[in-house]
Amino acid sequence: MEFKKDNFSEWYNEIVETSQLSDKRYPVKGMNVWMPYGLKIMQLIDRIIRDEVDRRGFSEVQLPLLITRNQLAVEFEHLKGFEGQVYWVTRGGLEPLEVEAALRPTSESAMYPMFSLWIRSHADLPFKLYQIVNTYRYETKHTRSFLRVREIHFFEAHTAHVDYEDAERQISEYLEIMKSIAGRLGLNYLLDKRPDWDKFPGAVYTVAADALMPGGRTLQIGTFHNYGENFSKNYDITYETESGTRNYVSQTTYGMSERLLGAIIGIHGDDKGLILPPEIAPVQVVIIPIPSAKTDVNGTAAKIAKTLQDSGLRVKIDDRDAYTPGFKYNHWEMMGVPLRLEIGEKEVDGNFITAARRGISGRVKMHAQDIFPEVREQLDEVQKKIMEKSVQFHNDHLSSISETYEVNKDGNAYSVFWCGSKECSDRFEEMTEASCLGLRVGSKKKGKCIICGKDGHEAVFSRTY
Amino acid sequence: MEFKKDNFSEWYNEIVETSQLSDKRYPVKGMNVWMPYGLKIMQLIDRIIRDEVDRRGFSEVQLPLLITRNQLAVEFEHLKGFEGQVYWVTRGGLEPLEVEAALRPTSESAMYPMFSLWIRSHADLPFKLYQIVNTYRYETKHTRSFLRVREIHFFEAHTAHVDYEDAERQISEYLEIMKSIAGRLGLNYLLDKRPDWDKFPGAVYTVAADALMPGGRTLQIGTFHNYGENFSKNYDITYETESGTRNYVSQTTYGMSERLLGAIIGIHGDDKGLILPPEIAPVQVVIIPIPSAKTDVNGTAAKIAKTLQDSGLRVKIDDRDAYTPGFKYNHWEMMGVPLRLEIGEKEVDGNFITAARRGISGRVKMHAQDIFPEVREQLDEVQKKIMEKSVQFHNDHLSSISETYEVNKDGNAYSVFWCGSKECSDRFEEMTEASCLGLRVGSKKKGKCIICGKDGHEAVFSRTY
Repeated sequence: MEFKKDNFSEWYNEIVETSQLSDKRYPVKGMNVWMPYGLKIMQLIDRIIRDEVDRRGFSEVQLPLLITRNQLAVEFEHLKGFEGQVYWVTRGGLEPLEVEAALRPTSESAMYPMFSLWIRSHADLPFKLYQIVNTYRYETKHTRSFLRVREIHFFEAHTAHVDYEDAERQISEYLEIMKSIAGRLGLNYLLDKRPDWDKFPGAVYTVAADALMPGGRTLQIGTFHNYGENFSKNYDITYETESGTRNYVSQTTYGMSERLLGAIIGIHGDDKGLILPPEIAPVQVVIIPIPSAKTDVNGTAAKIAKTLQDSGLRVKIDDRDAYTPGFKYNHWEMMGVPLRLEIGEKEVDGNFITAARRGISGRVKMHAQDIFPEVREQLDEVQKKIMEKSVQFHNDHLSSISETYEVNKDGNAYSVFWCGSKECSDRFEEMTEASCLGLRVGSKKKGKCIICGKDGHEAVFSRTY
Repeated sequence: MEFKKDNFSEWYNEIVETSQLSDKRYPVKGMNVWMPYGLKIMQLIDRIIRDEVDRRGFSEVQLPLLITRNQLAVEFEHLKGFEGQVYWVTRGGLEPLEVEAALRPTSESAMYPMFSLWIRSHADLPFKLYQIVNTYRYETKHTRSFLRVREIHFFEAHTAHVDYEDAERQISEYLEIMKSIAGRLGLNYLLDKRPDWDKFPGAVYTVAADALMPGGRTLQIGTFHNYGENFSKNYDITYETESGTRNYVSQTTYGMSERLLGAIIGIHGDDKGLILPPEIAPVQVVIIPIPSAKTDVNGTAAKIAKTLQDSGLRVKIDDRDAYTPGFKYNHWEMMGVPLRLEIGEKEVDGNFITAARRGISGRVKMHAQDIFPEVREQLDEVQKKIMEKSVQFHNDHLSSISETYEVNKDGNAYSVFWCGSKECSDRFEEMTEASCLGLRVGSKKKGKCIICGKDGHEAVFSRTY
C-alpha cells in the first residue's frame, strides 16, 4: 500500500505530527504551536522571501496588530468582506474599549492611514513595503495545519505608484518574484485571474498562484491584487506631481503564507516522510557514524562535519548510542534531510564517504578529501530531482477536458473553456464539485464554453482548500 | 546648550522620530509602527539574542497569541496579576466567543498546558524553549516608543528542571547570557532582587536587570524568574524519575523586550543623534565620495565598498547628487553609523582613505590597500568607546547615600541600606519619589536602614519607567 497515494489527508496529518512541525493540541482550535523544526523551516522560507524582495527595493516594516473598526470601515467593500470573519477585541482590562478593534485579517486598513502620512510627492514613488506577521481569521471551516488555520504566518507586500500602468508593472514584478521563490522551493503553480465574485474585497482584480496538491485539491499559495485607486481615494493617499497637481496613487499587494510550507510537505513528501529542498532544510547534511571497534569513525565524522560547516552548510552528526544506524536512517529520512553521509570502518580505511540522497535511489561514493564540492553537487541533484518530480506531478494532474463527465472525483485540476458567466461556473461546480479558479493567465486559447457552448476562454476549475 | 542633558525626554522623542525608528501616529495609542531602520536594528538585536541562547541548547518555538480565560485562570495569582491589564477578544465575526480569550501579556499560560503534554521523563530535562513574539498590555500610563508601549516586541525563555537546584543553575546561566548580550550592546545594568510585593505574579522570586537612563530613571531591561513548582503543580507538569516515581518540574523564565533598543538609544546617543554598536548597525560603514572634476572618486568608493561587503560588513555608498558632503556627514551621524569613510581627490591620489568614527573625535587615515583589517579595528574602537562611556555614565549615576536628603530630584539610582520592610520602602518613596528596585544581587554589604535604623542590606532605589 502506498499510504500517501491512498489517503493523502491522513498521510499529511501524520507527517506534520511525526516530523514535529506543528502541534495542534493547543487549547484554541485552529491555532497551532510552531514546533522548533517547523518554525526553522518557515524561517528559512522567510529568508528566501526577504532575499527576493529586498533586492528589488522593498523595505520591511511592522504595523500594529489591532485595527479599529473606524479604520476598517474607510473602504466599505473591505469592511463588508472582513467584518464577519475577524476576531474583535472589545475590552481592555475590565473596561470596554471606546472603539472596538479587529485582529488584523490583512493590513490594508492598518497601512493606508500611514501611507497617507508618508507619501508626499512623485519622488516618493514607487513606494514598496512589506511585512511578515501573523494574521487572524475566525475560520468556521475545518482547520488543517498550514493549510487552513486561524492564526496565519503571513507575508504581505504593499506598494503605491504614480498611475495604473506603473501598478501593472508592479504586478509583473510580483509574478517574477513568485516564480523565483517557487523555483527555490521546487513548487509549480497555475496563474489564475479570479472571477470578479471571488476577488479580494476592494481590488480591481486578483490573480492567484494555485498549486496542485495530491488528494485532488488546489492550494492558493500566492495572491496579487491591483487596487487601482480604490483604496487611495478612501484613505486619501495622494502625491504631488512634477507639475504641482495632486493625484491619487495606484496600489497593489502581494500575499503569501505558511501555505507555502503546506505545499512543500504535500507535494514533495513520500511514504518515508518529508523531502525538503536543501535551501530550507534545517539540517542539510546528516552524518551517521557506523560504530566500529577498531576505527575512529567519530573522529572522521567530526572532521567532515567541520569542513562542511566551515563552507556554510547546516550539518548534524547523529552519534547517539541508543539507536542503530538503520533507525537513524529512517529518522532523518522522515525529517526530510537532503543528504546522509555514512562513515564506517570501510569508509575510513578506504578514505571515502558513502552518501544517500533523499528522494533518489542508490548510494554514491565521495572522496573524503575535498568533500565540499561533491556534497554541494549532490545537494543540487536533490533539488533538481524535487523539481522534476514536482513538474511531473503538476503536468499529470492538470487535465484538459471538454465534457463535464470527464471530471474524476478523485480529483485533478481541469482546464476547460468557459464563457465567463457566474451561471455556467455555478453549474459546473454543482455537477463536479470543482469551483472556478478563474481565467488562466497568459493563455490565448479559445473555445466553446463547456456548459453553455458560447464563446469562451481557457479557465481552470478544481476543488480547493 | 546640550539638548540631551537639558531635556532628555524631548531629546529621546526627537531622535526616535528623526532617525525614523518608529512612527507613533498610528490610530491606536501606544501601538507604534516599526519603521524599516528601527525594525532592522531590532532584528539585529534579536540575532544576538538567538545566537546566545541557541548555543546554550535552547530551541525556538511560537505559541499562539490567544489565551483563553480558562488557561489564564489555572494559576490564580497569575490571573489576578494580569486580568486587569490585558486586551480581551470576545467576538469572532458577528458571534460572541464561547470562551473569551486574552491577547498574550506573557506566555506562561499558553506554554504550560503544552509542557504538560511534552514533558514525560527525566530524560526530557532540562527542557529549554524560547520565543520572540509580540505581547500586549492594556497600559494606562503615558506611553513612549520602546520604553512603554501596548504592543511589545518580546523575548521569553521558559525552562523546566528536575528540581529547584537545577532551576537555580538555570538562573545563573540566564545571568551569564544577559551579561554577554549587554556586553555586545554596550549596556550596563544593576541586578536587583525585586521585593516580594513587586515580583512576577506566580514566581518564587524575581531578579531584574535595571539600566540607568539619562533623565534619572532606571529601565528594567531583563527579568529572571524562578517559579519553583508554583506553575507545574497547577498545570500538572510532571516527569518520571529514574526510580519510576512522578515529580513536578521546577520552572524558570527570562524576559527581555524592545526596551533594549530604548536603552541603546538613550544611553549611547548624543546631540548629533544615535550611536549604534557596530554589531547592530544596519549600516556599519558609510562611504561618502567627495565630488571631484578630475578624479574618479565614485570608482574608488565602489571598489572599497565591494571589498568590505565581501568581508561581511554592511556598507552603504551615499553618492546622492542633491546633497553636500557636509549634509551627508550630519545625516549618517544622526543615524548612528559607526564609521564614515571619506573619499575625495586627495585620498585617491594619495592612495589612502579618511575615516571618521562616530562618538570619537578626530579623523584617522587608512591605507586604501587591504583596508578591511583597519576598518575592523576602528569598528572595534567605536564599540570600546561606547562601552567606556556607558560604564562611566553608569558609575557616575549610581550614588551611595546614607540620608534621604541626599536624593537629588534630577535623578540618579541610589544605593542605600534597607531593612527589607514595605513600610520603610514606602516611606522612602514618599520622601524621594524613588521606589525600591530590591536588594542588590551579589552585594554582601550590611548597614543600618536609611529609614528605621534597624539592620539592613544594600538595596537600590530609583524612579523607574
